[in-house]
Amino acid sequence: MASSLIGRSVVRVDAVGKATGSAAYGVDVTFPGMLHAKVLRCGVPHARIVRLDTSKARGLRGVRVVLTGEDVPIRHGPIIKDRPVLALDKVRYAGELVAAVAADDEEAAQAAIDAIEVDYEELPGAFDMEAALRPDAPLVHDDASAYDRVEVPGLRVAPAAGSNLCYHFKLRKGNVDAAFSRADVVVEDTFTTPKIQYCHLEPQVAVAQVDPTGQITVWASTMSPHLLRNMIAELAGVPAAKVRVITLMVGGGYGSKVYLGALNPLAVLLAMRAPNRAVRLAFDREDEFLTNDVRLPTRTIIKTAAMRDGTLLARKATTFWDKGPYALLGPVIVRNAGYCSLGPYRLPNAWIDGYLVYTNNQSGGGFRGLGVPQVAWAGEQQIDRVARELNIDPLELRLRNALRDGDVSITGETVHAVSVRQCLEQAAQAIDWGKNRDAEGPHRYGKGIACIIKSTLTPSASFSTAKLNSDGSVDILTSAIEHGQGAHTVLSQIVADELSLPLDRVRVIVQDTSVTPFDRSSTSSRTTFHMGNALKEAALDVRHQLAKLAADVLEVHVDDLEFVDGTIRVRGVPQHAYRYADILTRAFGSPATIVGQGACFTKPIYDPMDPDTGQSKRPSVYFMYGAQAAEVRVDVETGHYRVTRLASAVDAGKAINPSNCVQQIEGAAVMGLGFATMEELVSVDGRTLNPTFLDYKIPTSLDMPEMLNRIVEVPHPEGPYGAKGIGESSIATTAAAVGNALYAALGIQVHDLPIRAERVFRAIRSAAGRGRS
Amino acid sequence: MASSLIGRSVVRVDAVGKATGSAAYGVDVTFPGMLHAKVLRCGVPHARIVRLDTSKARGLRGVRVVLTGEDVPIRHGPIIKDRPVLALDKVRYAGELVAAVAADDEEAAQAAIDAIEVDYEELPGAFDMEAALRPDAPLVHDDASAYDRVEVPGLRVAPAAGSNLCYHFKLRKGNVDAAFSRADVVVEDTFTTPKIQYCHLEPQVAVAQVDPTGQITVWASTMSPHLLRNMIAELAGVPAAKVRVITLMVGGGYGSKVYLGALNPLAVLLAMRAPNRAVRLAFDREDEFLTNDVRLPTRTIIKTAAMRDGTLLARKATTFWDKGPYALLGPVIVRNAGYCSLGPYRLPNAWIDGYLVYTNNQSGGGFRGLGVPQVAWAGEQQIDRVARELNIDPLELRLRNALRDGDVSITGETVHAVSVRQCLEQAAQAIDWGKNRDAEGPHRYGKGIACIIKSTLTPSASFSTAKLNSDGSVDILTSAIEHGQGAHTVLSQIVADELSLPLDRVRVIVQDTSVTPFDRSSTSSRTTFHMGNALKEAALDVRHQLAKLAADVLEVHVDDLEFVDGTIRVRGVPQHAYRYADILTRAFGSPATIVGQGACFTKPIYDPMDPDTGQSKRPSVYFMYGAQAAEVRVDVETGHYRVTRLASAVDAGKAINPSNCVQQIEGAAVMGLGFATMEELVSVDGRTLNPTFLDYKIPTSLDMPEMLNRIVEVPHPEGPYGAKGIGESSIATTAAAVGNALYAALGIQVHDLPIRAERVFRAIRSAAGRGRS
Repeated sequence: MASSLIGRSVVRVDAVGKATGSAAYGVDVTFPGMLHAKVLRCGVPHARIVRLDTSKARGLRGVRVVLTGEDVPIRHGPIIKDRPVLALDKVRYAGELVAAVAADDEEAAQAAIDAIEVDYEELPGAFDMEAALRPDAPLVHDDASAYDRVEVPGLRVAPAAGSNLCYHFKLRKGNVDAAFSRADVVVEDTFTTPKIQYCHLEPQVAVAQVDPTGQITVWASTMSPHLLRNMIAELAGVPAAKVRVITLMVGGGYGSKVYLGALNPLAVLLAMRAPNRAVRLAFDREDEFLTNDVRLPTRTIIKTAAMRDGTLLARKATTFWDKGPYALLGPVIVRNAGYCSLGPYRLPNAWIDGYLVYTNNQSGGGFRGLGVPQVAWAGEQQIDRVARELNIDPLELRLRNALRDGDVSITGETVHAVSVRQCLEQAAQAIDWGKNRDAEGPHRYGKGIACIIKSTLTPSASFSTAKLNSDGSVDILTSAIEHGQGAHTVLSQIVADELSLPLDRVRVIVQDTSVTPFDRSSTSSRTTFHMGNALKEAALDVRHQLAKLAADVLEVHVDDLEFVDGTIRVRGVPQHAYRYADILTRAFGSPATIVGQGACFTKPIYDPMDPDTGQSKRPSVYFMYGAQAAEVRVDVETGHYRVTRLASAVDAGKAINPSNCVQQIEGAAVMGLGFATMEELVSVDGRTLNPTFLDYKIPTSLDMPEMLNRIVEVPHPEGPYGAKGIGESSIATTAAAVGNALYAALGIQVHDLPIRAERVFRAIRSAAGRGRS
Repeated sequence: MASSLIGRSVVRVDAVGKATGSAAYGVDVTFPGMLHAKVLRCGVPHARIVRLDTSKARGLRGVRVVLTGEDVPIRHGPIIKDRPVLALDKVRYAGELVAAVAADDEEAAQAAIDAIEVDYEELPGAFDMEAALRPDAPLVHDDASAYDRVEVPGLRVAPAAGSNLCYHFKLRKGNVDAAFSRADVVVEDTFTTPKIQYCHLEPQVAVAQVDPTGQITVWASTMSPHLLRNMIAELAGVPAAKVRVITLMVGGGYGSKVYLGALNPLAVLLAMRAPNRAVRLAFDREDEFLTNDVRLPTRTIIKTAAMRDGTLLARKATTFWDKGPYALLGPVIVRNAGYCSLGPYRLPNAWIDGYLVYTNNQSGGGFRGLGVPQVAWAGEQQIDRVARELNIDPLELRLRNALRDGDVSITGETVHAVSVRQCLEQAAQAIDWGKNRDAEGPHRYGKGIACIIKSTLTPSASFSTAKLNSDGSVDILTSAIEHGQGAHTVLSQIVADELSLPLDRVRVIVQDTSVTPFDRSSTSSRTTFHMGNALKEAALDVRHQLAKLAADVLEVHVDDLEFVDGTIRVRGVPQHAYRYADILTRAFGSPATIVGQGACFTKPIYDPMDPDTGQSKRPSVYFMYGAQAAEVRVDVETGHYRVTRLASAVDAGKAINPSNCVQQIEGAAVMGLGFATMEELVSVDGRTLNPTFLDYKIPTSLDMPEMLNRIVEVPHPEGPYGAKGIGESSIATTAAAVGNALYAALGIQVHDLPIRAERVFRAIRSAAGRGRS
């Protein structure tokens, strides 16, 4: 028998297509006679639209459709329907779109955009997330309570009129005040994180077409084609069956390309007014920087108490989240990051407040790590401070307090398959924890470590089918998107393995909502677990159906059959191997199909969180655990530093494709490095100053540390082969690990991200000043 | 509750798209950078290729691929693998392809074709189907027994070396010689039918593309995408999962666009040599006339015996079928038409021989009616001759002998749901049978009637799934092709009805072998029965799954639920109606999919025919019955005539969409009219003389009789709602009905099709001559 495909680093099924350039992405979709669309950004962060004149634009050659908010008075949103497709009366952030045009070519579309005249009456804005909560703050929405809302179990979202507070997350456990009183050590800090951009290589793009029957087809670069389909159907007022969302390869998403976004509804609404002509709307990089969502900036005031032996007693944290003007997935981010902000620790007392605040800054969206990178920056640096106060090694302090199997978590859940200790140990071992390199001239070395816990979207659902073809090969029908994470490879491995087939007889072909079953989204590191489970079940369903047919055809009991190397054999009679194709032909007297079904949905295990206490017996179907250790080399004279080594240990449950896992771990770590060391979308009073890659820096190959990746495998009882998601862990720990390493090197604490050399330099100077005084 | 959709003439789901021109067909598929292909026909009916020089062609600007038989030494065929993709050493009919070219544009491709030099050594040909069986006849294949064959249960195909006999069908029942001896009347005739073309509006076309991973995608105008996929996979030596056949609207097929054909393998083989560039090959009308298959020409020597009271005693028939050089589906045509050539009658004695003969004429293919139009032309005229000899009304004679429920058929089957009597009665009634119009000057009127029995492809299999979307709308996954017959409308009606949904919440979107389940083919009038059954089952599966979820969610017993107007209600509590979407959300805690499966496969009921006697307890899952009555007005001075009225009565079992049924009946009758009155591809020694619509006539609106269409509904116990196929019945009866009407008008018998005025004129003159002698 061929060895199992599970646990093998097979070459990615999309590798050849990508390497040769033949793999098609959303940006590659073009049609003859297609219209090209462009958008108009307002450029002012908060203003009333006094005049919006499109008459000149409408008169230009080649201009087919001009849309303003008046034409499409629609508001949407996954939780609060507060977001217009195009600004209605007011603009609420400088990247907001006020008009869109479709024309025969891009030049004509841009000329029309340039010919649109808008007069604004600027209004005072709410730009600081704390100040925005004051009673006298300018209101982003006159009455946010008036918008329609979508009920989400365990999430109490009820913005009040006259306030910019969008959502308030609360977690209450034990008695924090008493704990702080009796603790041996209590530390308190304030940490901040900036806006950063997703920077996916492929910008957002959609081609939409509406035929005379009203059938809407959208070729979209999306991580959630079925949610997009449902939302477009709602927008257009048609059954979902009349909307077809086709997704090709996605050139990176990281949470940006979910739900409607700013772009997709415009492509559809333009196409609905240009019957039978496809309309292509692609964001350029400036659109991405200015109009797209950002990682929510935060300010966290955090306080931790411990006993002398290192036992953590309590944590109290207040995080302000700068939401920008539209709620989007914000409440879920604040809730999930909120209870994860306590870290993977045993903690008897906690008091967490998360304030999601409407502002006139750029809107914040779900972003790889979903809030955990922000809260881990605060929480994991504070753990180090506790360790220093107690003179305990930071690794040792973490290990003493790390959750163990059977512990009751901070939400009241008895946790299992907890792997934070293994992650910490492996990351530490990889980087030779405890051995520090000596100073070299002005260079100092230091090591830091950090760890996280992260939930996954719960409840959610994934469905799939596997179609056994006449010749015994298999088509996989899944809506899971390949956005670079290797999902299609892992899913193919699972199906091939369950059906004892070589990998090349199994294909994932299309993601098309009209044919591939519902999947929630290829986000939240959920695909391997959810779609993997669904496809494992679908493959087993095929196998059972096939075995039943074979038992009939061969006149044996089904238990006497075995699947070997793509054939079925009767136990004890290895010389007769029946190809699947032969069984099908004999059973059906014809070429035939067997369709197997599978589903994974987590509602049955989900316990909605108590909105007053944040308590839940099972808020997440599984938790991701990861740890990272960083080594830095700092020039004490300039503050310039490099991350020289970065060790990431992440629990995959079971690594179905180890090399794929390493790529995911490393990819997330690189994004973590950008967040830690350089990325920041700088804005002043709602106006962004650096919307280009000239001024907004992301890591390049020259910035790479030595990457030390470790896969931990603590099987999750409900995962396929024990597997669970790993796509986000190592983005969330990097900043704190680097911050802690800098402290180890220099004895200085940085509170604000990104940790640019300039900040290090100032901290060194300031510490030196304090030292002198 | 909304009234049932079954039996309602809803507007076709493809009507708006077709009426507005937005519906896309295979000919509409284009891609940027696509190559255009052209083919070279040999032009000689039988020859050895002495020299084939493509060097000049290869050197021309823009020429990318030049293929000859040497490059692709492959033979294929659904039963006998005797057909090369491009001629190998020899050509065997004048339309055979010897080379194909793909170039940057059509002009370059044609220039390259024109630059190919071929020298032939012509060989004596076999052009007459009887003469070709003589021992001294030129051989079409040196040794046809040497080709690989595909075994088909109940079909003994074993061509012998040194003979042009491809297949011999035999039916032996009772004692025909004894019956002929004791009969009161015995009549014998010889009838012939010509080659005719399919004349589908959309010519054959395929766009093929092969990506660097070896994935083959073909946009094909085909009635059998899954068979095409499997055959391309075999040709290319890859798993079927690596071949994707996508079919859009098909602009008519009539049996032409099945299996590989001449065109599809070339498109694929060219594309395999032009990596990453799509290759489009479209036949022009001349290619269609000269290279495509034709309706098999026949010569039938037929003898029927009856008693004075009209009881039919025996029939003996020998039919020669001119196959051309490649077997294709020929043996199945000869077998199925063979046993149907006895008509829908009780006949205790029969002796049928069908000789399928290799010739150097154009190859014969499966064609709407599958051989029955040819044998009915002979058999149903002979029934009239028996009637005349016995002085019994031809309708009356037919009714006396018509099969009834519980009769044993000529193959030994006890038949049920027999409707030939009803068809005869309705056709006769529609045309006022028995009332004849008086002569008007030189014009004589006459009426004729004919009826048929036709089998459907058995065994065969259809599979499908129905996908209930989050919002309660449904996507239908079927590979059934819409080629003008209204299949997608009928299938949508079935699914919508079973799920109590309005029609517009149900969509058939794509036919794509990578996602839509296996279907044998949209041929043989099998779709409503097979795919209808499969989709009814799939919809019921959705319904059962949904009911089970609803029972859990609503905490009631599943039997207490009812489906009303797209909602689920608890019996006795009509005020609470739950939308399907709500049930899904409550059950899964998320948007969700329910996939229902269905299958219809006929192997379990199929009894393979005894190859020596043609006996089978169940050769076909159902039989089609139909009758047609024609009225003609003939000018006795010129022979010019018109079919003035044409009454078609066809048994639909149950007319799911009556107006669709009428369109099918009428469409087939018009093709029958062309076959009867004007169509003929004239060839002399294998060279076709009229390969254009200038010289090859088909009926136009000016030729239309008054069409009187009657739907008979004798429910078939195994059909969905009793339905079965009706797409072919009324093409098969027209010629004999018109022939019989002409006899009624003039007292002359035409033996050869088409019945052109010239033939009538000659028959009148010849009868007058006989009258004078």
